[in-house]
Amino acid sequence: MIPRYSRPEMTAIWSPETKFRIWYEIEAHVCDAQAAIGVIPQENADAVWKAKDVEFDVAKIDAIEAVTKHDVIAFLTHLADIIGNDEARFVHQGMTSSDVLDTTFNVQLVRASDILIKDMERVLAALKSRALEHKDTIRIGRSHGIHAEPTTMGLTFARFYAEMDRGLTRLKTARDEISTGAVSGAVGTFANIDPSVEAHVCEKMGLTPEPISTQVIPRDRHAMFFATLGVIASSMENIATEVRHMQRTEVLEAEEFFSKGQKGSSAMPHKRNPVLTENLTGLARLVRMSVTPAMENVTLWHERDISHSSVERTIGPDTTITLNFALNRLAGMIEKLVIYPDNMLANMNKFRGLVMSQRVLLALTQAGVSREDSYKLVQRNAMKVWEEGKDFQTELLGDADVLAALSAEEVKEKFDLGYHTKHVDTIFKRVFG
Amino acid sequence: MIPRYSRPEMTAIWSPETKFRIWYEIEAHVCDAQAAIGVIPQENADAVWKAKDVEFDVAKIDAIEAVTKHDVIAFLTHLADIIGNDEARFVHQGMTSSDVLDTTFNVQLVRASDILIKDMERVLAALKSRALEHKDTIRIGRSHGIHAEPTTMGLTFARFYAEMDRGLTRLKTARDEISTGAVSGAVGTFANIDPSVEAHVCEKMGLTPEPISTQVIPRDRHAMFFATLGVIASSMENIATEVRHMQRTEVLEAEEFFSKGQKGSSAMPHKRNPVLTENLTGLARLVRMSVTPAMENVTLWHERDISHSSVERTIGPDTTITLNFALNRLAGMIEKLVIYPDNMLANMNKFRGLVMSQRVLLALTQAGVSREDSYKLVQRNAMKVWEEGKDFQTELLGDADVLAALSAEEVKEKFDLGYHTKHVDTIFKRVFG
Amino acid sequence: MIPRYSRPEMTAIWSPETKFRIWYEIEAHVCDAQAAIGVIPQENADAVWKAKDVEFDVAKIDAIEAVTKHDVIAFLTHLADIIGNDEARFVHQGMTSSDVLDTTFNVQLVRASDILIKDMERVLAALKSRALEHKDTIRIGRSHGIHAEPTTMGLTFARFYAEMDRGLTRLKTARDEISTGAVSGAVGTFANIDPSVEAHVCEKMGLTPEPISTQVIPRDRHAMFFATLGVIASSMENIATEVRHMQRTEVLEAEEFFSKGQKGSSAMPHKRNPVLTENLTGLARLVRMSVTPAMENVTLWHERDISHSSVERTIGPDTTITLNFALNRLAGMIEKLVIYPDNMLANMNKFRGLVMSQRVLLALTQAGVSREDSYKLVQRNAMKVWEEGKDFQTELLGDADVLAALSAEEVKEKFDLGYHTKHVDTIFKRVFG
Amino acid sequence: MIPRYSRPEMTAIWSPETKFRIWYEIEAHVCDAQAAIGVIPQENADAVWKAKDVEFDVAKIDAIEAVTKHDVIAFLTHLADIIGNDEARFVHQGMTSSDVLDTTFNVQLVRASDILIKDMERVLAALKSRALEHKDTIRIGRSHGIHAEPTTMGLTFARFYAEMDRGLTRLKTARDEISTGAVSGAVGTFANIDPSVEAHVCEKMGLTPEPISTQVIPRDRHAMFFATLGVIASSMENIATEVRHMQRTEVLEAEEFFSKGQKGSSAMPHKRNPVLTENLTGLARLVRMSVTPAMENVTLWHERDISHSSVERTIGPDTTITLNFALNRLAGMIEKLVIYPDNMLANMNKFRGLVMSQRVLLALTQAGVSREDSYKLVQRNAMKVWEEGKDFQTELLGDADVLAALSAEEVKEKFDLGYHTKHVDTIFKRVFG
Repeated sequence: MIPRYSRPEMTAIWSPETKFRIWYEIEAHVCDAQAAIGVIPQENADAVWKAKDVEFDVAKIDAIEAVTKHDVIAFLTHLADIIGNDEARFVHQGMTSSDVLDTTFNVQLVRASDILIKDMERVLAALKSRALEHKDTIRIGRSHGIHAEPTTMGLTFARFYAEMDRGLTRLKTARDEISTGAVSGAVGTFANIDPSVEAHVCEKMGLTPEPISTQVIPRDRHAMFFATLGVIASSMENIATEVRHMQRTEVLEAEEFFSKGQKGSSAMPHKRNPVLTENLTGLARLVRMSVTPAMENVTLWHERDISHSSVERTIGPDTTITLNFALNRLAGMIEKLVIYPDNMLANMNKFRGLVMSQRVLLALTQAGVSREDSYKLVQRNAMKVWEEGKDFQTELLGDADVLAALSAEEVKEKFDLGYHTKHVDTIFKRVFG
Repeated sequence: MIPRYSRPEMTAIWSPETKFRIWYEIEAHVCDAQAAIGVIPQENADAVWKAKDVEFDVAKIDAIEAVTKHDVIAFLTHLADIIGNDEARFVHQGMTSSDVLDTTFNVQLVRASDILIKDMERVLAALKSRALEHKDTIRIGRSHGIHAEPTTMGLTFARFYAEMDRGLTRLKTARDEISTGAVSGAVGTFANIDPSVEAHVCEKMGLTPEPISTQVIPRDRHAMFFATLGVIASSMENIATEVRHMQRTEVLEAEEFFSKGQKGSSAMPHKRNPVLTENLTGLARLVRMSVTPAMENVTLWHERDISHSSVERTIGPDTTITLNFALNRLAGMIEKLVIYPDNMLANMNKFRGLVMSQRVLLALTQAGVSREDSYKLVQRNAMKVWEEGKDFQTELLGDADVLAALSAEEVKEKFDLGYHTKHVDTIFKRVFG
Repeated sequence: MIPRYSRPEMTAIWSPETKFRIWYEIEAHVCDAQAAIGVIPQENADAVWKAKDVEFDVAKIDAIEAVTKHDVIAFLTHLADIIGNDEARFVHQGMTSSDVLDTTFNVQLVRASDILIKDMERVLAALKSRALEHKDTIRIGRSHGIHAEPTTMGLTFARFYAEMDRGLTRLKTARDEISTGAVSGAVGTFANIDPSVEAHVCEKMGLTPEPISTQVIPRDRHAMFFATLGVIASSMENIATEVRHMQRTEVLEAEEFFSKGQKGSSAMPHKRNPVLTENLTGLARLVRMSVTPAMENVTLWHERDISHSSVERTIGPDTTITLNFALNRLAGMIEKLVIYPDNMLANMNKFRGLVMSQRVLLALTQAGVSREDSYKLVQRNAMKVWEEGKDFQTELLGDADVLAALSAEEVKEKFDLGYHTKHVDTIFKRVFG
Repeated sequence: MIPRYSRPEMTAIWSPETKFRIWYEIEAHVCDAQAAIGVIPQENADAVWKAKDVEFDVAKIDAIEAVTKHDVIAFLTHLADIIGNDEARFVHQGMTSSDVLDTTFNVQLVRASDILIKDMERVLAALKSRALEHKDTIRIGRSHGIHAEPTTMGLTFARFYAEMDRGLTRLKTARDEISTGAVSGAVGTFANIDPSVEAHVCEKMGLTPEPISTQVIPRDRHAMFFATLGVIASSMENIATEVRHMQRTEVLEAEEFFSKGQKGSSAMPHKRNPVLTENLTGLARLVRMSVTPAMENVTLWHERDISHSSVERTIGPDTTITLNFALNRLAGMIEKLVIYPDNMLANMNKFRGLVMSQRVLLALTQAGVSREDSYKLVQRNAMKVWEEGKDFQTELLGDADVLAALSAEEVKEKFDLGYHTKHVDTIFKRVFG
């Protein structure tokens, strides 16, 4: 995580303060549940809540950890200092560190997911708004970077909407995947702690109990979580790449918004760089790089080892913080993207009607001209456009053989853009309902 | 894909014969739909079905492609040879190659998923059966490869069951992700083909129409599909690693089944190698390596490019074939895995009761001994076990200070294995219902 | 590996025939060395060479393996059938299968490297030739896809040359990395076979002895090898992406060669798709996907396990075959790439001199105008170009304030392209010597 | 980067202070070179060195950047504040930001490499020392985790030494790869700055001039750099995995050093977890995850884009800091690793001589017994060991058929461990010279 690419709300989830707060809540809820089934005295459970509004002293906990070399023990020592050693004596009873650590990690991932869900919704709102705005803005569709047939800018936004909407659905599923908690004690047998404790803690923390844990929560859940973020990042890169192409000097169908204050804009008015989308391209790689280690983390030795831990300490915060930043940058970029419909038309007409050649070819065939002859007719007129800069429609209308098969009206009709947009409404209905 | 790691049923899905058969079906269904809305004559649509039972000649199609350098055109030429040039003249009208290719690829992935779902069910059945069989087979739980507290072999199988069951759920979701088809024509606007055609084809092919395509089906779907297979492969590696550990010479709690015929078994009876699970470890890497390129494939230029194509031609077959093989190898391995309960007990007792030291410590504390004193009491007896090979329970029973706090009965009770297995039923109910 | 993306010379290296031939040579050389030190009779060593010109029967060997489930034993049985059971009795003595398998794999990788080195040399020759041809072909340099300052097409080819030349150097280093053989017996102690045997075999097979093996050759060597191929593939993608951009309809500064015969070229003359470079983009991903599993392969349990084996059976052939195909496609593409210098000039002049604005700004500053005033002068003329389509040089020459600082001659000089190309020779000398 | 896994020396390389210091040095050296060729006045070049001992105010620079949104301009403004606006007017003349940024990044990577090289040397020294110490410490070699034939602990250390020594060689090559600088101006043509300036700067900064840059230094160099770190990390994981296996409760041939102070050691003396090596396993994944994005970074659009930038801002520091930490943890772990030779012997003898069965088999064959008969002789004695717990040597000596072929002396000789260690010296000489 680097400050340049992070936002406070997400960063806060991964702060030591938040972590200790969640540890505390878990320990306190455990005590409540232990008291409820008579394992520990009620007053000891109650005593833990004395720390409810205390802000834990991270520096002190770190100092204790420097000695004990154990973070959970350091925290418990600090907690005992606050609520009293005697009162604290039943805290953490029957538990292992993993009960706290794994449940906390999942609480953090769930909270991170909730932010990312909001981010996705912002991206979707932006895409939908721009799709509706440019529903009928004609633009050449391109395959292989080469002009193909007309489409609309609204369809471009709509397809990104549909893709990101799938991303949102996946994200919600991924959130569910990691919404589990475990308080099952050493090697997960509940030998030292009753399952009812886990149930209580999970309910309070907004989780469901992990059906079977082994001291740790199984890591296939996390692998799926990070894989999902990787797919969303890839979709983000897809959108970013489209904008980078549109902003090329030779294309110039859109530009990232460039505020008046930004240096150098007007002495070199052609030099407005798509820096946001280039940045998003890189950020997508950063999100995606967590996928493989998250998958390698699935294999643990027997009931647990801690090979996954350093990976998660890194990719937990870094990946969610980066994606949170990136999705907001993406949303802002889309909201403000400057669209140039005139340039879209100019680009489409660069080859004076040639993009309609396939339609003319089809019309000739349907009018009874053989495939070979149709091809020759189209070809000889196309080459005049390509080599001599003529206009395709004009040439066709001046070709007697063409007019023998198609009326002038029919030829002109082939250049009607409405032909290409007639199903835009249908598609929009599919996407936006 | 290499024959050694492939099975015929899955391989068949990716054969040229199957591919051409699906192409044919799509083209034929398109003609039906086109005829239904009056775009092409009904007799031409009917004529296409003449080829229904014909086996396409792959060699001939390849020969045509060698000239035309276009696989779909080569196929259509071959089809026309079969049903007649005149009859074939409306085949493929209004379509682009991608309509056929992308829809076909998804049909293949859906069929592959159906096989993989069966494979997962076989794995699950094996895991469940072995879990029930060894529900009460006592075994030491290990964290960090070090003895921790007792658990049962059944719980090990049960947790793999739960993990693979999540994998199955994910696989079904992934199957849904790629169950779409597109017949939307150039740049996906339906300019040249009516949306009703797509609806008909998809229904016939067991797919749903892609809400918005751009000549191609969006590749975030495929990224999610391969990411899901990667997670399943990682879970498979998790199981394989457990078995490899169990089969170590020093552990020997289980062995892969070793048929009588297998060479060398009895002259070196200790030398039975876990070759199946080592192989599964490698196969997991092969499945997983498709994840990153599948994600890199998401970004296409504008309405389409073909950078994804070579990747998919490879990972489509290779990844599904490898996982299909691996899951069946995994299932067979689990079904026949030879379990050694006696060795499990012997291993657990290697340190003569020391694994119970934590429980004794807790009991002393609960009996009112201070934490420090409890620790010292446990420690001095533990060290006699560790250094002199004494038995822990015997030592404790001979320690007057221990007996001052706990009765002999209470001490013995701490060595009761039932303490550790008392919630096995609860957990099994959670996992198997 | 799929036939579409493979070439016979590289494929042959990975055929069963080649593999058995290498196995045979290793076994025969071992016998020679064993005889030389008196471990086995000379006549038995000599007898092995009777099979020198025999073509091994792959089907028979496979049939034996189907029974024995051990590939090396199957081969040895077949060999004994050929040279006589008695004569063959000392073949493989003191060896383990890994001695044969690992040494063979490295022989194959070395041979594959030799082909790839030739491929790289072909790519380099093409790049150099095109660099010299277009050394002075003026073209706009672009940062962020936006026009920046002039450069030449030759410099573009030259930088790809320099990059690929580094790739060649890396490839040669990678070849050295895997040029080792091992004949060290079980767990690599040479207990059962003298080190002199290994030395002899390695010398004959063009390898150096692995300094310390453990039954297997250490896999860090292979990880480095595949990582190197991954970097080369990434450089290939870099070149491919440049060409894809150049071929965009709006840019059209180059086109992949399009043979007369290729269908559809002239009816839609604008529709020539950069399919080769799109394909290379995908192939780069396929090469790169071997890197992570090759690195995961480095960790083996104790003296050996076979988790790496299935991975190598796949990525050994697939990655070298794919890169071999791709490099040749790349070389052919470069050799025939059609360059459009006129379009390069037209593109550069799209904004009528605006790309020189920075140079004018600098000149004004150097002429003593303050930075702020210089900026205003440039800006007001630049905006007339941008908004009203005027010519930048003309506008500057008509601006009295500009002429107060710079003479007309000095203004014109700022538009001299020679300014930008004056160090092309220097750079070419650095790159090509 | 997280503090827990970082060391100050490496972290300092990536601090803003260090970055600005390098920026400053580059700018100052550029001024010197510009003055030397008469492009700027000498006194302006001299003036820049006034800031030589000034500590730049990171907060102030950040504040300026918050307004200008350009980091290099922010720095130059701050520098001008220090040395005077007039004196600073020629700073950065003819340069682009990339000249500073890319050259700085490579300076940082070179310095990071120098630290990593020292780290590797520490690892190597530790491995060599332990190898010599345990050169003759007998230990069972294992393939597939199963006992194979004897080896020595020294050979294990020696092979890790050889592997890490290759890693060091690779690291030095990788260091050379990124030891280049570029001061070539916009799009890299040297139009605005003389090549002699670049030569001077590179010499002063310990770099060589990039032969051909395009405003940016080509990223294949960085891809190779990070790939190399990935391979080294994989070797580190290889060592870590060996130790994790050795420390397993059932194996216990080694333990990570456990200081007296570490909590819980003696109440559960069996519970000493290999937490360092588990951590190293995870850190290896973190280092490795930079490889793929570094390769994806190679492709830039035309002369430059900034998609690589966010990736490098992250993996530059994170990967070098993590590997630096990990290599030191690895070295410390090796230096202090507690080895248990007695347990090694005990483990080897677990099956009372059975590991020698292959040697006996060979001896019988060489004594003229047919392969089938030899096998039966070994088998019937081996099974008594395996099933009844007898001692293999004793059984053989009691088998008349065995003694008919081999003398008692010859049988005993087969159990001589010297047979297996006779070439340890040879191997050590190969590895250590």
